[in-house]
Amino acid sequence: MRVGVIGGGQLARMMVPEAIALGLELKVFAEAESMSASLATANVGDYTNAEELGWFADGVDVITFDHEHVPVDALEQLERTGVSVQPPSEALIFAQNKLLMRKKLSEAGLPMPNWKELFSAEDLDGFLAENGGKVIVKTPIGGYDGKGVRVVTESDQVSDWFENISSLGGSLLAEELVAFKSEIAVLSARRPSGEWRAWPAVETIQKNGVCSQVLAPAPEVDQQKALEIARTISEALRVTGVMAVEMFQTPKGELLINELAMRPHNSGHFTIDASLTSQFEQHLRAVLDLPLGLTDMTSDCAVMVNLLGVESNTDFLENYQATMHRFPEAKIHTYGKQPRLGRKMGHITMSGDNLETLKSRALLAAAVISGS
Amino acid sequence: MRVGVIGGGQLARMMVPEAIALGLELKVFAEAESMSASLATANVGDYTNAEELGWFADGVDVITFDHEHVPVDALEQLERTGVSVQPPSEALIFAQNKLLMRKKLSEAGLPMPNWKELFSAEDLDGFLAENGGKVIVKTPIGGYDGKGVRVVTESDQVSDWFENISSLGGSLLAEELVAFKSEIAVLSARRPSGEWRAWPAVETIQKNGVCSQVLAPAPEVDQQKALEIARTISEALRVTGVMAVEMFQTPKGELLINELAMRPHNSGHFTIDASLTSQFEQHLRAVLDLPLGLTDMTSDCAVMVNLLGVESNTDFLENYQATMHRFPEAKIHTYGKQPRLGRKMGHITMSGDNLETLKSRALLAAAVISGS
Repeated sequence: MRVGVIGGGQLARMMVPEAIALGLELKVFAEAESMSASLATANVGDYTNAEELGWFADGVDVITFDHEHVPVDALEQLERTGVSVQPPSEALIFAQNKLLMRKKLSEAGLPMPNWKELFSAEDLDGFLAENGGKVIVKTPIGGYDGKGVRVVTESDQVSDWFENISSLGGSLLAEELVAFKSEIAVLSARRPSGEWRAWPAVETIQKNGVCSQVLAPAPEVDQQKALEIARTISEALRVTGVMAVEMFQTPKGELLINELAMRPHNSGHFTIDASLTSQFEQHLRAVLDLPLGLTDMTSDCAVMVNLLGVESNTDFLENYQATMHRFPEAKIHTYGKQPRLGRKMGHITMSGDNLETLKSRALLAAAVISGS
Repeated sequence: MRVGVIGGGQLARMMVPEAIALGLELKVFAEAESMSASLATANVGDYTNAEELGWFADGVDVITFDHEHVPVDALEQLERTGVSVQPPSEALIFAQNKLLMRKKLSEAGLPMPNWKELFSAEDLDGFLAENGGKVIVKTPIGGYDGKGVRVVTESDQVSDWFENISSLGGSLLAEELVAFKSEIAVLSARRPSGEWRAWPAVETIQKNGVCSQVLAPAPEVDQQKALEIARTISEALRVTGVMAVEMFQTPKGELLINELAMRPHNSGHFTIDASLTSQFEQHLRAVLDLPLGLTDMTSDCAVMVNLLGVESNTDFLENYQATMHRFPEAKIHTYGKQPRLGRKMGHITMSGDNLETLKSRALLAAAVISGS
């Protein structure tokens, strides 16, 4: 069984160990040489080129993704020639285009922040007036980790986007700025024949728009309600493989859907060390339409902390001695990436039975390994 | 940090996921193309050739092993040029030569079956007379998984070995046939600067001289005594990296040392899925002289069952659907090896809190995946 992964980043990299365990062949279509998943890179090329994708697809049983940037029309072309693309283009479009996602989830009656499609500055003025004078504006396509997203109080603050609106798809997305108590993520997997399994909902803590910590399970959330939302989305959108649903939890305990990702996700890295089946193994099983593994946690709770590049010469390996000495319980993961300020370079997971202890020790370990 | 592994079998293969997680470079010196560890194979050659070993060692920070068959004089030559070989040749010799091991462990006062060095059939007759008329005879070098080992009642049964005794090193090893209650293995790791950690002692169940099941922790054994023996050996022999000590447990609870392996070992595969630090991660840390990780189990107990080739066309992947469907809790590992009757093709681990349930389910899962 051969799985083709488009994208050579850390998500593709972390599929490799699971492919080795299950004896699967993993072939990565990377954007460049020496990327994070270089060990499994079978092809370096341009993933927007349908012809190149076609050659790559010839050598594998299924195509899946490390990111959601492959143009849907290129994927549709593959699908027409009989290639198994998981998640299929009909689902992936909703992860690529936030506006289509809002429309589709509204149809399904799912809970979301107020939102509006904007064609002009006047539309935004109206939405600002109805939503407390401060809202979020997003480009429908292409944003992640805080990019393509702005908090605005005046329509002038996105005038550059309105000026180029046709190149951005013809409209923008405005969303209510939710005064949330916490951010929640639900990671689940679904396979083409319908089986669905989820991990416990987690709390994600962001810093400057980038995920910093994940607490698993989320200390205060209605787990059943959170998982029900994820399941409804999976089934309504016919998602396959792993999907992450990010939600806001309001002070009243409401859960409002924020973003979707149809691939393994930063909020699920804890599953490698603290769950019976990791998100990377589950993703491979799901896209091959193999039965899914149990998602039980192997400890009461776990904390994951991202290791972000401190500066251009951050070398976590240099600090392995000190970190491993002080934290023999830490599960350290680094991604073999060139260091850059703020770049996701790795993560640390700790598991146990006291969330507060795990949080403080994991943060300390991250500081030691970063030399900060 | 670059680790060079000599030998391209499943032990080298299972080091790859841990090297990926820690961002280490793993380079394998394989005996042939398309071996189990082919994904990390950097060199295919003859590991008895000191010159080839020298070239390979040039590109890595430490040399370690997937098997113990590299000639000690070739390793000594590397060490003289400043290469870090872990375990060092001075330790590895005791894993290669069972007679030297018996002599060394006797000096250290460690508990063992009666044994004797044999130079002639007369020596064996004497040993037979003193030990109930039925003993074990081993060639000092080269035996594993039941090869190079015979149970004899008359010296005629090893006359071929006595005829070729000079090619076997000049003598044979005779050992008392221990009427054991159970077989125990202790897996531990030691790094050059001295730190030592062990996993709980396990029970191993052999079938036709090959490991079939591992129960972790061993249901009935004096854990402290078992670990103390392993620690004494590690330190007396100055072993580095992971070491497995196989022991017989007599009906009275005595522990008698059977065999040593200075590398990750079949009895430790359960650590991948049921311990905070797997034997493969620990081995990499130990040979790089990095601080060792915690060895706590992540569940009360675990059972590992080997998947042996049933016949030449055994294809475990064909039975993944049925196995994963019936056993969503099973951790399945296959090694990408050409099937052959009795060959170690993979293993399954299950963890939980009831050893009897785990045993029966793991055996059943192994039967389903083997199509038997």
